[in-house]
Amino acid sequence: MASFKCPVGKSSAFDSLHNSIDQRKTTCGHLGSISKVDITRSSSRHWHPSAHRISFRSSEKKGTHHSFSIRAMAESDSVNGVPQIDISINPRVASLKPSKTMAISDHATALVQAGVPIIRLAAGEPDFNTPDIISEAGIKAIQEGYTRYTPNAGTMEIRTAICNKLKEENGLSYTPDQIVVSNGAKQCIMQAVLAVCSPGDEVIIPAPFWVSYPEMARLADATPVIIPTSLSDDFLLNPEVLSSKLNERSRLLILCSPSNPTGSVYRREVLEEIAKIVAKHPRLLVLSDEIYEHIIYQPAKHTSFASLPGMWERTLTVNGFSKAFAMTGWRLGYLAGPKHFVTACGRIQSQSTSGASSISQKAGVAALGLGYAGGEVVSTMVKAFKERRDFLVKRLQALEGVKLSVPQGAFYLFPDFSSYYGTEVEGFGIIEGSEALCRFFLEKAQVAVVPGDAFGENKCIRISYAASLDTLKAAIDNIEKSLTLLQPAAPAKHS
Amino acid sequence: MASFKCPVGKSSAFDSLHNSIDQRKTTCGHLGSISKVDITRSSSRHWHPSAHRISFRSSEKKGTHHSFSIRAMAESDSVNGVPQIDISINPRVASLKPSKTMAISDHATALVQAGVPIIRLAAGEPDFNTPDIISEAGIKAIQEGYTRYTPNAGTMEIRTAICNKLKEENGLSYTPDQIVVSNGAKQCIMQAVLAVCSPGDEVIIPAPFWVSYPEMARLADATPVIIPTSLSDDFLLNPEVLSSKLNERSRLLILCSPSNPTGSVYRREVLEEIAKIVAKHPRLLVLSDEIYEHIIYQPAKHTSFASLPGMWERTLTVNGFSKAFAMTGWRLGYLAGPKHFVTACGRIQSQSTSGASSISQKAGVAALGLGYAGGEVVSTMVKAFKERRDFLVKRLQALEGVKLSVPQGAFYLFPDFSSYYGTEVEGFGIIEGSEALCRFFLEKAQVAVVPGDAFGENKCIRISYAASLDTLKAAIDNIEKSLTLLQPAAPAKHS
Repeated sequence: MASFKCPVGKSSAFDSLHNSIDQRKTTCGHLGSISKVDITRSSSRHWHPSAHRISFRSSEKKGTHHSFSIRAMAESDSVNGVPQIDISINPRVASLKPSKTMAISDHATALVQAGVPIIRLAAGEPDFNTPDIISEAGIKAIQEGYTRYTPNAGTMEIRTAICNKLKEENGLSYTPDQIVVSNGAKQCIMQAVLAVCSPGDEVIIPAPFWVSYPEMARLADATPVIIPTSLSDDFLLNPEVLSSKLNERSRLLILCSPSNPTGSVYRREVLEEIAKIVAKHPRLLVLSDEIYEHIIYQPAKHTSFASLPGMWERTLTVNGFSKAFAMTGWRLGYLAGPKHFVTACGRIQSQSTSGASSISQKAGVAALGLGYAGGEVVSTMVKAFKERRDFLVKRLQALEGVKLSVPQGAFYLFPDFSSYYGTEVEGFGIIEGSEALCRFFLEKAQVAVVPGDAFGENKCIRISYAASLDTLKAAIDNIEKSLTLLQPAAPAKHS
Repeated sequence: MASFKCPVGKSSAFDSLHNSIDQRKTTCGHLGSISKVDITRSSSRHWHPSAHRISFRSSEKKGTHHSFSIRAMAESDSVNGVPQIDISINPRVASLKPSKTMAISDHATALVQAGVPIIRLAAGEPDFNTPDIISEAGIKAIQEGYTRYTPNAGTMEIRTAICNKLKEENGLSYTPDQIVVSNGAKQCIMQAVLAVCSPGDEVIIPAPFWVSYPEMARLADATPVIIPTSLSDDFLLNPEVLSSKLNERSRLLILCSPSNPTGSVYRREVLEEIAKIVAKHPRLLVLSDEIYEHIIYQPAKHTSFASLPGMWERTLTVNGFSKAFAMTGWRLGYLAGPKHFVTACGRIQSQSTSGASSISQKAGVAALGLGYAGGEVVSTMVKAFKERRDFLVKRLQALEGVKLSVPQGAFYLFPDFSSYYGTEVEGFGIIEGSEALCRFFLEKAQVAVVPGDAFGENKCIRISYAASLDTLKAAIDNIEKSLTLLQPAAPAKHS
């Protein structure tokens, strides 16, 4: 916690104000009877842009509304004689939410380090090793000295291979200049949001959502507009609700199918209905996050949004190698879209990171050479994921008070445990929501899962089944046992 | 060139307006007698943020000033029945300058593909292969399945190794939580600029500068403030001039030593003078780009800015593996600084790319294990660079009308060829500046070098000597011969 001083003030009521670097954790010292404190980014011309406007209501003088400017200044006792240093952060960056996934992960790591045998089902990555044929291509690249800069948008070799894949598997026609290869699909999405959104634009995000989408919108000075979906609809966006939320500021709709965190897969017919609505809005584009494309369970089928009538021009398709090919550590993803947008994405990349690893790109080419949808190598992994899904679905459906939409893809379950909320556990406290429940599972069941709150749905938790069946069995046994601690206060079964 | 329609207009004088996706290339059709057209980003509340305000003066009605809003709309004949799509780009991104380095590189590639044997001295990367010991560590990482996500800020192993390096070689004390490892030093710099600059802040950049610095400032909505330096001062920033340019909006001074593109190295005394000025400005931070640290020629010595009295708290030190260890394709760099800034950088990274390649991080640990300043492996490369520098310096100094500051580090020469500007070559045209001269060298000497204009100094060109002595000899022979075509009109020697 950094300490701040107030260099400019209009009210002597403030002796000092202590503020953490994260502005949402503001605590005010010496404020006495102040009833409400808001810290907002300065917008007026009269305020310095790095300053934060602080307004507050005094409960002593009712109705008075004070307002003054503060700029964060570090009290650095260690540097004598040097003026205090302004340690303020770009408001756009300061407003980024810290990752709740990371908080749980840190807590789990601390327990592991203390000797507690935590079962980790919080990670968003396959437990398989990168397939040998891909690894060998990476090794060959290093051995042959293929360790120089590649073109910013990726080598012609990998972009051509990506075009072939998109044509054969997705029915999408792109040329290599309509592809940008990046350090992971995350970078592709960030760049797309930055490229197409102007300040004040709205980014439409169905919830539950992948944690980074709203933060990316904020980084672009755009406004995330969250549209809730429900478990009874398999967490799929209702086209009518979408329609009611659109206006002339709506710039980008983000769809993720198969979905992280729900595992839901959009049927072609639903996407067609969404496409009809999108077509009515000239400003609206669609970012289709298809990173889990290959991890899908029959009879579910993957449909690329850009393949729908009239949607190619509107759609930025994002995919990558991390999930299907167990290549998370290689950092390799790609975006495909109309050239004017892709060029802008490439320009951001050329000024912010340059191209992806030359070694990873060679490995990526080998991955795309494995055959349709990754061939047998990938289908073997998908088969294992399906077994695990089936096992956990059965176990979860047997738990009292737990609701579940059976996921058709990805490697996550997103069960609703909200019937357990509100109960109190001795020595732990009240299970107020998904965050408390995940802490409870961590401490009482030694299982790490992610609070649904992080994905915009507090009723649920996300369980990753990228782990062996034995591990999953131990985890669900532990969870089941720990729930008995909650049982007495649990309401009747809701399903 | 995309074609645009004007959906909203207050003046019937406009039948249509054709605009390229790059707003700077605006051409107006059917405008008849309009004398002046300005297109600016909309700032008023009454204009849509993605719209561009177009104002123009009619030469028919003197003094009248028309103004209306336009939003870029694609005329897409291919998609029947679908409304036109808004293909506008975030103004911040649209304002990014296309890279002139890339333009020359594309031109060179086209010539090579046409069978012309171009000597490429434009690249910013060593011609050496990654040293074996580093490559082997990368291979081992793949073989051992070390191909998963690492912590966002980098593995504890590499961050600890970086802390040790900074302590031993640079006299800088950092803990691992004050380090962020990224996909290349470029990402480190971009994130630092984004983190510390608020909209309207000024980023102070001495020219000649690395091409991405001003563009990064623009991406952060900050204003790049360019301070020219001169060849006679070895392109070093004059502390008095710096002082005269500082005000309360000055947020970040970017220093690069050894410098790309000039090869200049700041002596400790000059940095101390700069530090004294910096210390007077509470808001001013320093980004010290030390990526060429190890490529330095005695008696020149590298000084880390953060090691100067009072400067640790102010400085963000950026370094990486690409240049010293010939690891450009591995994409690995790092930033060190006070924790509040580093945390913000890490937060941007966690939402935009996640951590760097796990394989590259293992290779990076091996690189840092090579010994002080990279040990013999690096000193062998530096020795070769020095030989090449000495060779080219001698040859350039012998050329009439060419001025040169002898570089003390990096692998670039930045000679002043401006005495040749203004001369006309039959069948080529006038050598108007560095861009034309580089095109001339490309076509007439078959040598690719980069126009100084790209680095903010049009008098000069950048020659990379990351090539064998034989290659360099052929290149300078060709350049010397081609200059005879310019000789007749060249002014007297200026040096």
